[in-house]
Amino acid sequence: MTERAQSRLPPIVITMGDACGIGPEIIAKLFRASAAQRCFVLGDVAVMRRAAQLTGGFLAVATIDAAEATFDVPPNCIPVLPADALPADLLDAPLGSIDARAGSAAARCIEQAVALARRGAVSALVTAPIHKEALAAAGVGFPGHTEMLQALAALPGMAPAPVRMMLANDELRTVLVTIHQSLRRAIDAVTFESVLVTVRIAQQAAERWGLPAPRIAVAGLNPHAGEGGLFGDEEIRIIAPAVAAARAEGIDARGPYAPDTVFMRARNAPGHPGEFDIVVAMTHDHGLIPVKYLGVEQGVNVTLGLPFVRTSPDHGTAFDIAGSGTANPASLAAAIAMARRLAAG
Amino acid sequence: MTERAQSRLPPIVITMGDACGIGPEIIAKLFRASAAQRCFVLGDVAVMRRAAQLTGGFLAVATIDAAEATFDVPPNCIPVLPADALPADLLDAPLGSIDARAGSAAARCIEQAVALARRGAVSALVTAPIHKEALAAAGVGFPGHTEMLQALAALPGMAPAPVRMMLANDELRTVLVTIHQSLRRAIDAVTFESVLVTVRIAQQAAERWGLPAPRIAVAGLNPHAGEGGLFGDEEIRIIAPAVAAARAEGIDARGPYAPDTVFMRARNAPGHPGEFDIVVAMTHDHGLIPVKYLGVEQGVNVTLGLPFVRTSPDHGTAFDIAGSGTANPASLAAAIAMARRLAAG
Repeated sequence: MTERAQSRLPPIVITMGDACGIGPEIIAKLFRASAAQRCFVLGDVAVMRRAAQLTGGFLAVATIDAAEATFDVPPNCIPVLPADALPADLLDAPLGSIDARAGSAAARCIEQAVALARRGAVSALVTAPIHKEALAAAGVGFPGHTEMLQALAALPGMAPAPVRMMLANDELRTVLVTIHQSLRRAIDAVTFESVLVTVRIAQQAAERWGLPAPRIAVAGLNPHAGEGGLFGDEEIRIIAPAVAAARAEGIDARGPYAPDTVFMRARNAPGHPGEFDIVVAMTHDHGLIPVKYLGVEQGVNVTLGLPFVRTSPDHGTAFDIAGSGTANPASLAAAIAMARRLAAG
Repeated sequence: MTERAQSRLPPIVITMGDACGIGPEIIAKLFRASAAQRCFVLGDVAVMRRAAQLTGGFLAVATIDAAEATFDVPPNCIPVLPADALPADLLDAPLGSIDARAGSAAARCIEQAVALARRGAVSALVTAPIHKEALAAAGVGFPGHTEMLQALAALPGMAPAPVRMMLANDELRTVLVTIHQSLRRAIDAVTFESVLVTVRIAQQAAERWGLPAPRIAVAGLNPHAGEGGLFGDEEIRIIAPAVAAARAEGIDARGPYAPDTVFMRARNAPGHPGEFDIVVAMTHDHGLIPVKYLGVEQGVNVTLGLPFVRTSPDHGTAFDIAGSGTANPASLAAAIAMARRLAAG
């Protein structure tokens, strides 16, 4: 999409994340570095002011009253749309600590950002890190963003649609069949249906990015993809049939391939064109090890299957360094760049 | 070790591998490129002559009668120590096919190379690829080199000592607790004993390389290393106690760490000093995905726990291209370089 066409899109909303973590600080750093054009923050004005001061230069905070007002804010100024119903004493929550007020505020920002995305007021949602225990302390029962966004995106009275986590960097995109459960349970959760749904979600997402016929590699679960049944039969019983079913739907899915070499084959680097556009991985760590290997600062987490674009950095709240001004905003910058690209499709 | 000191070591033996695969051809390429100094081949003279012709330049084959005669052979000449009891019609076994004669010959070469290593006639053993089905056709019951070498290295009347597979490149060394079994069985095989033995073997091997206090990271099994028991309890029940036991023995073992980031943290690249010297991985693919990600041509397979140094390239017999002259000798070259380094220790 040209710059001109992109300039017709609504702005991107960045949720502030946990106010006690590094979220506000890395957001401010990106505005200071002019790396967050066409973005605004949904959060708390006082928290963002404190974060702006941490950047050690002139950076103002402007309160806006609607998403589209983002474009009226001058450079060197963070447009902040105040979230409703935030705790009044949020600034009292100590940096670097688990605090119910910060957990509650983080949840409010996400809810209101989803509402903006659903009515088309924003072109994408980028989320700064939240903390599972702070959410729990605030009575919010979701283990993370992915699960919360899935629930918020459900239509009234309908079961939530399936979503999948994708981790991507410049070289590799992996979409995960299973995520936050033990490896034993993850094996049980690898079913014909879960694999096929993952491949379909990957296909639909790629179409939205302007990639109508992605080459989707499906990794095996077992060493050597089972070595013909010798090292496990999930490839024969489950994964190969799911690949065949996806192909019957016209999706260019292939595999199952040996997990130890499929990511190398998909790697798209200078002088090394990747054989595949997306790898579907059966487990959290098969998929994340190769994407993170070259550095988390390059990785972006994308939730596929939602009715809007959502990305996030590939790290947490880093309470140990929150407020020190040392947090690296690179992964958030990559998340914003990815959101921009996906929204432009 | 200085070049002078290295020059006092016995030569390195390279087993020919499966005569129908790319083994003889990549060996010949390395001699032609003068990249196999101080090495000789244990195998069949006629097979190595055929392979030498494939390199498309002048490369002779010299029959030697003992390992030390390697040093009398001029450049541009492959020293070959003929293995005993090879099938007479080995050259009739068609390139690129599974053949019992090639399987039998490959097994003889390995047996005799181990005998040389055990009596100190060679400083290291580098094995060219073999084929599991060709071995089986010859009545050899081992699924691969590692298991065969373990059995051959056992003392008469004693149970084989435990060995472990390490995969290494310039950036990363991973040692595997489990290898060739289904992921379900691999989880069952992650025990206090198997983890502790792996850490001990890694420690002992590193000492032999001249690294007396290696920083050994132990990866978890589950996502986020179990997230405090929420995503599986093997870290709490098994892995953490094994790490503690290793530490009590004076080994600098640490962890368990989240599998998705531990390899990135251990990665030792320009501008990115690794936090650890070795990563112990619970499963085949957790360990091999990151080592292979940057390309198999750089990876070397090392068997730890044997009473001698043994390395091999990180690929198989590649029957589909055997005899075409196109096989890439890079991984074998890396295996020889690694054997040289480890033998020099």
